[in-house]
Amino acid sequence: MVWSQTITISPVARTDLADKPFPLCYRRGMTASTDMPNGFDAENQHWISVRVYYEDTDFTGLVYHANYLKYFERGRSDFLRDAGVDHQSLLNRPDPAAFTILKAEIDFKQAAHVDDLLRVRTRFIGTRGARILFDQTVLRGDTVIAQAQITALTIHADGRARRPIAEIVEQLQPLIYQISAE
Amino acid sequence: MVWSQTITISPVARTDLADKPFPLCYRRGMTASTDMPNGFDAENQHWISVRVYYEDTDFTGLVYHANYLKYFERGRSDFLRDAGVDHQSLLNRPDPAAFTILKAEIDFKQAAHVDDLLRVRTRFIGTRGARILFDQTVLRGDTVIAQAQITALTIHADGRARRPIAEIVEQLQPLIYQISAE
Amino acid sequence: MVWSQTITISPVARTDLADKPFPLCYRRGMTASTDMPNGFDAENQHWISVRVYYEDTDFTGLVYHANYLKYFERGRSDFLRDAGVDHQSLLNRPDPAAFTILKAEIDFKQAAHVDDLLRVRTRFIGTRGARILFDQTVLRGDTVIAQAQITALTIHADGRARRPIAEIVEQLQPLIYQISAE
Amino acid sequence: MVWSQTITISPVARTDLADKPFPLCYRRGMTASTDMPNGFDAENQHWISVRVYYEDTDFTGLVYHANYLKYFERGRSDFLRDAGVDHQSLLNRPDPAAFTILKAEIDFKQAAHVDDLLRVRTRFIGTRGARILFDQTVLRGDTVIAQAQITALTIHADGRARRPIAEIVEQLQPLIYQISAE
Repeated sequence: MVWSQTITISPVARTDLADKPFPLCYRRGMTASTDMPNGFDAENQHWISVRVYYEDTDFTGLVYHANYLKYFERGRSDFLRDAGVDHQSLLNRPDPAAFTILKAEIDFKQAAHVDDLLRVRTRFIGTRGARILFDQTVLRGDTVIAQAQITALTIHADGRARRPIAEIVEQLQPLIYQISAE
Repeated sequence: MVWSQTITISPVARTDLADKPFPLCYRRGMTASTDMPNGFDAENQHWISVRVYYEDTDFTGLVYHANYLKYFERGRSDFLRDAGVDHQSLLNRPDPAAFTILKAEIDFKQAAHVDDLLRVRTRFIGTRGARILFDQTVLRGDTVIAQAQITALTIHADGRARRPIAEIVEQLQPLIYQISAE
Repeated sequence: MVWSQTITISPVARTDLADKPFPLCYRRGMTASTDMPNGFDAENQHWISVRVYYEDTDFTGLVYHANYLKYFERGRSDFLRDAGVDHQSLLNRPDPAAFTILKAEIDFKQAAHVDDLLRVRTRFIGTRGARILFDQTVLRGDTVIAQAQITALTIHADGRARRPIAEIVEQLQPLIYQISAE
Repeated sequence: MVWSQTITISPVARTDLADKPFPLCYRRGMTASTDMPNGFDAENQHWISVRVYYEDTDFTGLVYHANYLKYFERGRSDFLRDAGVDHQSLLNRPDPAAFTILKAEIDFKQAAHVDDLLRVRTRFIGTRGARILFDQTVLRGDTVIAQAQITALTIHADGRARRPIAEIVEQLQPLIYQISAE
């Protein structure tokens, strides 16, 4: 049985999570994102938690590579939401807007597996003309699972590219990633 | 522009979330699941939060119907995890096990849209022979978005059906949904 | 460039492909759907081929259950296209329209695996008021893999339900599944 | 029967398809991939057709960016299958093997929409140590929709990287893309 061999893949993966205290207010509740804070840290890095479910894996037992792009997109969406910019309000503008992706460079460093609790770290690098640049990482504990440089673009409702919306750029400006001691 | 018309679909949808206080410990953090508790309530109903992202929608502007099955699966996985049963430990048994779905009946009641913060409510109905029965609902606030009866089955590592594992049934027994005043 | 003709999507545009001889230089081509006919049979059953790829499977090694809903949707879309009704022309109407799903009942009978070449059989049952009824099956050879009753609904561009469009119902009427000797 | 070679994948399962006569009465069939040849051209470029369905789009009305990685994967899988290397037989080796992705660089050039009939062109560039290199393009007619450099890796059943399997490299060697007059 090929498949039965794959079950040994990640025995030690999540020991770092093992002694995280559960929120007291709930009988149980070790699910996903309740135990690690989502949002910005002091260096303007934005964090969310992502649990790996059945849907995310493929027959090799690992997370299917294309799904990391979904994790990165969730990270950017929540970055924007936490910065006060959500997709619905962009759609409700007199000049409706949305985002599209122009370029993605992804390095897949380590495998992830079902049940893994991953973290998506989003660094907003800034705008270059019409381009909006992000540097993003998926981690499990301190282990880098995947890393990506993503170039986004603002589009009109009919799909045509447009320059980033001025007030949004202004809103995001203070959230540009501050390279510190790293 | 066909598309631009779809933007008016859900103007008032999430006003109920608007005045939810953000956790104090974080500068921002209205993202997903930080603000509503995940886990079991007093009636053994299990709850998780699901944010709707780009990946979940289709060109009609609504959540793509098949993706509700993913939300339901996340609900069942977290129900199991919070009951002490996770997929990795099932895979690591001497007789590795996993789940498969035998039957799904889904009613799509209302549309959901990008940015929506949905809740998945999972009620474990019990086992009938080899079958494991769930009653699940996706809600946005008090509005039922989709409802499903799901019949799951335990499988061996080679995909063959097997009876539910005794100690797991025992573990889940106290979590059978208690129909109360409803 | 044989395929350069396909860039015009409309139904008329591709009738002229029917008798295009394949370039002689094509040395192999056992891939998927080239070898089994897609379209209607004598009983108005509509058939398409679906290859199982990495993306369709999960860590159990089997096709992930929600993905059968995708296969069924491909079947309905191609049924409609072959009946002369495609989504783009529905979107381009003065009163833009699309479809949504109201109800889905799915029985998962057998597992499917990566590389499997499946067939989706779509039977159009007819309309019941605003409801459009389909009976669909995924097969591998003569083996039934999954079976579904799907109830669809026509929607306006803003997501509101509407009655089926009269000329489309008329177009589909002759394609109602004829229960024969079966 | 060109594809009859692929039916040996899961021994018993689909042999009964081999001598199934096609229904004579197939009246329509302009769906997807029946009308354009899949396989290798004279320059060792491999081609498949991909139809855009509901599942592939997002609320902007365009194909969701991560789904292009799925299209590219289908292209590579069919490239391998047409070269005589399928995933099932790799899994059935005494030393079971599969592929994982190490690096992906994708440029999104143009948007694609529901109903579009796209073509995936796969060029096998060769191996560099353990790395297997592909250059892939999604086109609609002559228009480049997306372009990718993909680096794959052979893995053991437990997810560890391994060198490409010698006989597979040998099998693929003659299929390295021949840069011609282009």
